[in-house]
Amino acid sequence: MSSSYGHLFRITTWGESHGVGVGVVIDGCPSRIPLTQEMIQRELDRRRPGQSDIVTPRKEADRVDILSGVLDGCTLGTPIALSVRNADHRSSAYDEMQHSYRPSHADYCYDAKYGIRAWAGGGRASARETIGRVAAGAVARAVLSVLCPDLEVLAWVERVHDICCPLAPQDVRAEDVEGNIVRTADAATAERMAEAIRRARAAGDSLGGVIACTVRGCPVGLGDPVFDKLEATLAHAMMSIPATKGFELGSGFRAPEFTGTQHNDPYYMDGDRVRTRSNHSGGIQGGISNGEDINFRIAFKPTATVMVPQATVNDAGEEVTLRGKGRHDACVLPRAVPIVEAMVWLTLCDHCLQQLAVRAADRAER
Amino acid sequence: MSSSYGHLFRITTWGESHGVGVGVVIDGCPSRIPLTQEMIQRELDRRRPGQSDIVTPRKEADRVDILSGVLDGCTLGTPIALSVRNADHRSSAYDEMQHSYRPSHADYCYDAKYGIRAWAGGGRASARETIGRVAAGAVARAVLSVLCPDLEVLAWVERVHDICCPLAPQDVRAEDVEGNIVRTADAATAERMAEAIRRARAAGDSLGGVIACTVRGCPVGLGDPVFDKLEATLAHAMMSIPATKGFELGSGFRAPEFTGTQHNDPYYMDGDRVRTRSNHSGGIQGGISNGEDINFRIAFKPTATVMVPQATVNDAGEEVTLRGKGRHDACVLPRAVPIVEAMVWLTLCDHCLQQLAVRAADRAER
Amino acid sequence: MSSSYGHLFRITTWGESHGVGVGVVIDGCPSRIPLTQEMIQRELDRRRPGQSDIVTPRKEADRVDILSGVLDGCTLGTPIALSVRNADHRSSAYDEMQHSYRPSHADYCYDAKYGIRAWAGGGRASARETIGRVAAGAVARAVLSVLCPDLEVLAWVERVHDICCPLAPQDVRAEDVEGNIVRTADAATAERMAEAIRRARAAGDSLGGVIACTVRGCPVGLGDPVFDKLEATLAHAMMSIPATKGFELGSGFRAPEFTGTQHNDPYYMDGDRVRTRSNHSGGIQGGISNGEDINFRIAFKPTATVMVPQATVNDAGEEVTLRGKGRHDACVLPRAVPIVEAMVWLTLCDHCLQQLAVRAADRAER
Amino acid sequence: MSSSYGHLFRITTWGESHGVGVGVVIDGCPSRIPLTQEMIQRELDRRRPGQSDIVTPRKEADRVDILSGVLDGCTLGTPIALSVRNADHRSSAYDEMQHSYRPSHADYCYDAKYGIRAWAGGGRASARETIGRVAAGAVARAVLSVLCPDLEVLAWVERVHDICCPLAPQDVRAEDVEGNIVRTADAATAERMAEAIRRARAAGDSLGGVIACTVRGCPVGLGDPVFDKLEATLAHAMMSIPATKGFELGSGFRAPEFTGTQHNDPYYMDGDRVRTRSNHSGGIQGGISNGEDINFRIAFKPTATVMVPQATVNDAGEEVTLRGKGRHDACVLPRAVPIVEAMVWLTLCDHCLQQLAVRAADRAER
Repeated sequence: MSSSYGHLFRITTWGESHGVGVGVVIDGCPSRIPLTQEMIQRELDRRRPGQSDIVTPRKEADRVDILSGVLDGCTLGTPIALSVRNADHRSSAYDEMQHSYRPSHADYCYDAKYGIRAWAGGGRASARETIGRVAAGAVARAVLSVLCPDLEVLAWVERVHDICCPLAPQDVRAEDVEGNIVRTADAATAERMAEAIRRARAAGDSLGGVIACTVRGCPVGLGDPVFDKLEATLAHAMMSIPATKGFELGSGFRAPEFTGTQHNDPYYMDGDRVRTRSNHSGGIQGGISNGEDINFRIAFKPTATVMVPQATVNDAGEEVTLRGKGRHDACVLPRAVPIVEAMVWLTLCDHCLQQLAVRAADRAER
Repeated sequence: MSSSYGHLFRITTWGESHGVGVGVVIDGCPSRIPLTQEMIQRELDRRRPGQSDIVTPRKEADRVDILSGVLDGCTLGTPIALSVRNADHRSSAYDEMQHSYRPSHADYCYDAKYGIRAWAGGGRASARETIGRVAAGAVARAVLSVLCPDLEVLAWVERVHDICCPLAPQDVRAEDVEGNIVRTADAATAERMAEAIRRARAAGDSLGGVIACTVRGCPVGLGDPVFDKLEATLAHAMMSIPATKGFELGSGFRAPEFTGTQHNDPYYMDGDRVRTRSNHSGGIQGGISNGEDINFRIAFKPTATVMVPQATVNDAGEEVTLRGKGRHDACVLPRAVPIVEAMVWLTLCDHCLQQLAVRAADRAER
Repeated sequence: MSSSYGHLFRITTWGESHGVGVGVVIDGCPSRIPLTQEMIQRELDRRRPGQSDIVTPRKEADRVDILSGVLDGCTLGTPIALSVRNADHRSSAYDEMQHSYRPSHADYCYDAKYGIRAWAGGGRASARETIGRVAAGAVARAVLSVLCPDLEVLAWVERVHDICCPLAPQDVRAEDVEGNIVRTADAATAERMAEAIRRARAAGDSLGGVIACTVRGCPVGLGDPVFDKLEATLAHAMMSIPATKGFELGSGFRAPEFTGTQHNDPYYMDGDRVRTRSNHSGGIQGGISNGEDINFRIAFKPTATVMVPQATVNDAGEEVTLRGKGRHDACVLPRAVPIVEAMVWLTLCDHCLQQLAVRAADRAER
Repeated sequence: MSSSYGHLFRITTWGESHGVGVGVVIDGCPSRIPLTQEMIQRELDRRRPGQSDIVTPRKEADRVDILSGVLDGCTLGTPIALSVRNADHRSSAYDEMQHSYRPSHADYCYDAKYGIRAWAGGGRASARETIGRVAAGAVARAVLSVLCPDLEVLAWVERVHDICCPLAPQDVRAEDVEGNIVRTADAATAERMAEAIRRARAAGDSLGGVIACTVRGCPVGLGDPVFDKLEATLAHAMMSIPATKGFELGSGFRAPEFTGTQHNDPYYMDGDRVRTRSNHSGGIQGGISNGEDINFRIAFKPTATVMVPQATVNDAGEEVTLRGKGRHDACVLPRAVPIVEAMVWLTLCDHCLQQLAVRAADRAER
């Protein structure tokens, strides 16, 4: 269904860019998980507009309210409703968008699909929808911190336009990523990327890039073979984030460069733990986590909002020129990092809960 | 859930490589769709082993039986059960696999997940599971031929190892793809690819590649924004196919090379139809089809089965050497083409049926 | 899942009795359905506490806010979030409930299931949860008024304790039901029922009864045979309402009194419409609506909250006496009438949208 | 969806009465559950036609084949496909049914819903569909015998027409029920019921009745409050069985006879176990099992197939007389007992697996 994600840990997001607010309901969160407003707010603050001079200046505190499902800092097992009010919505800035379709935005397709559209600020297609994902992701993270205490999910901006961060996944550290406004993995690259973003913004243009993500300490056995392979659900999750154009796991699109004997990851014993010597598989084999780091990358297109005149059509079927107006986020990647992490938390939490049923017999025996 | 796919047009596949057989049940197929055994068999024949000298020699007629849901060549609206018997299953060839984990196969992960494993021939992780997908895909195709008569789904092998097919998506023709054993888009490339596959096989090695796919004549408005964006469900579908490592739509991983003004697809009017002048979006914007060709690519790793000795471990936690045995498919891509198409048919059919509910109000007015 | 209902028209309710508020998110509502706050408020006002002297005196305006999914009085096709603030929650009145389990309430079972419980006012098990159902039901009703303009859903209190309303379903009129505070079908019975309820309340006791419901003008063909038969989903919906103990369709538990030749409903032609001469089937045959009135009845137990001392145990495993405190609704049936109707609207709306896919082929041909 | 049931332990049945066969696929069965063909066959034999002189004489061995998901007597965690061939299908006996609608059968409604119908023997609406349920129920029972070893599910025929079995639920024993052909709880009543059925059959007529069911040893805490209350899902399950007209739990439709103080079940301590002194609740409070016996009853109408001429209409809109032909099951209740038990096993198994996720935090701590 459109706005729901997950089977057992199931979230439903709601809200338009210029409506009352946005939010999410989480159905299926286990009971007795420690959870506070601060744990959710911390993640929302990473996604928030106006954090630095390289992201959108929309002014939103994005303060989350927990409306249900939590008592005295602990989950009840009942639905958790979270909401965030919209504050800075200047609909007038979008008047032109009411009838003209912004190129490579969702405007035309919403009209075609629904026969109606909340045009101000992109409506439901606005990136504000991802607030619900990030808030719910923080709850999933709280669950996983109980179920899989060793799990770490770490995303970073690996590329902006033609500038790439040279660090390998195993060398990236969370504190370095949070230590710069671009959320890339080293300070020097961050400086160059920030400068490129500032130049693009000054030109009224925008930049895309690549976000990389590594999952460390994942239990062996997550992921359902056949249709809900772990990589299939991760791909689904990542490709549901606005502006994404591609997903690859492990060797990804470079896999064809290898032959089978080169690409296979030989097993060996590391004490009593089964490990692989290489990790072309990216931590998943047969759709199931094998205990190695799960490494994947997501391609983002340059933001569709640009501040230059563009040829387009309107809803009367006329060809028109659209002048750039409204707020302008010249590169979404720094703020997309927490969104990527949230979608990973949500996906892993759901698989984790499902795995309890798969191994029900063993649990009964304990 | 593990072996089910789709919301309204929902399939559940079953079967192990060396069990009685494999099959699928389709729940939610509309009534009164013309459907014959031949329509399904035709697609299975494209997936069948032993079609040519470059694919696995396993001998299987893969004859499908329609067990329910069809009367006098027409669907009843009740579940359609399809089954295919396994014939050529030489379990003895796999004795070594009972306790040793083949590198980059699912063996170890199945044991870790389930605590038990049908080891012969890969069990549930065998590519034979995809028979159910291809059979169900043929049914989805039958539904779409009624609902969207102009729709064409066309996949082809774009790359094998380092050999690439130079044709652009709009220049690829179905008859050319079916006209060569590799299922690439032109005969000259096919010859070179086939030769590379034969060389790899002779060396006991294997090759990966890329399958490209284009969807022509797709109605505007398919795809659910937010979590079930059309590209998200396509990515899910593609990454659920064994041996896939990546998915990209339109400009994909090259998107970051562009700036926003370069990447945006300007709208124009083509008669009374809204079109875009470029198609970096790959036919989908905001998660919804825009009527342009939907173009995407899937990376495949080289087959994990190779005929050379490999270091690995066994289920007793000992490091051992595994000699290559069993049948050997040196390049799965030619047979993966109908699997890719089947997953596209299944995904589009489900979205098509869902769209009826979205526009229910308009239908009531007619 | 616990707090979600429906497949295509899918609702998720949230909220505890003494938390911030209660609400619902509706995912899958068709676009372009006329919908106003008033249409929802009207139904909530029928469910509201404090309507008359025979229902709970809890003071709640139960004012609904539409947070998303609606623009200019029309649905957008995106999730519709509705919320109602809690106002009059005097937690102190419930202190005793924190550790002692009220007999025949959900307290003990919640503790056993979740290991934690929002004890004030019953928490999630409070009837306030049904606010979300009634609000969503009003939206489903709005959809059905477009899709099935002739449909009427009418519930009434048929029995309170030992007082029964003598009218047959076909003789009951909506205006008569809304015309008395008990919501039974005739004024004379209403007076006797109201008096019985007042007597029970004065004694600190409570009464149960039966709500009957008739659906007129239902299209032929709704309901999915096998597991989601129309009567099965209606039974599910009704038995999910707090305090229900039984469901029967048509002849119900009197069916065994008949033989087959007596019970069968003979078909005849009424102009070009297929009708049945009797309606023991209750408007559903083989799980599918046949166009006759759908008649069913729901048994309600007397409210578990009583104002007399009761023997029980506490969460320390001690036997204790619980004095009656808190607000007291001596008979829930008058306020349950709109809840029953809401669950019927929700169930029929979901089946209606599903039926569009079943008959997709015919729609394509039009 | 139509032919699927369950969330985590999810079954999909398929097959028409006069097609190749019938079957079921179970997706989500935990791994490492002991399971043999005999465990399934035993239940099918209880449902089989031709067991005695009071049930349908259709000759079917109903031999089940396990097609997948089981290895060496143990579940693999992958889908379990089960099938049964149809043998004795004399379509010619049903020629008259091709165009004429049998009263109170599903014929007319199938035509209205689907625009097409497998008319021979009732097609999908035939009771043969329940073979898949009983087979899957046996698998659910196998799972529960591992997860909840103390659980007992026991159904029996409590009433046939006007003959009632006087035993209270706690006095009924499984061996007594299986010890007579009617499957009632005592031999004397069985004799009278059998005689009534024989008389009805001789008259070409049919009888309905009531099946009672008790669940003993159910763990506390099963059932999801709000929409998937344990009684709501049991009602759904029971009302999905062909020919059912009503469901009641505990005091059921007699609940209104009590006042609240009379109806409430007082808690007391039985050693360290919380118990109730009465059981009007029927073992479920707030939608969650409380550890007492779960008692419920299901009303069955008299079989719609009768051997006397009946007025009806045909698919050309003409009024016609239908002569009784085909096989005749004068009372379905004896064979419905294993179907009721199967649906209870399926429902409880699904709730049991879901409960693992609810209490995930506690499991992590162990």
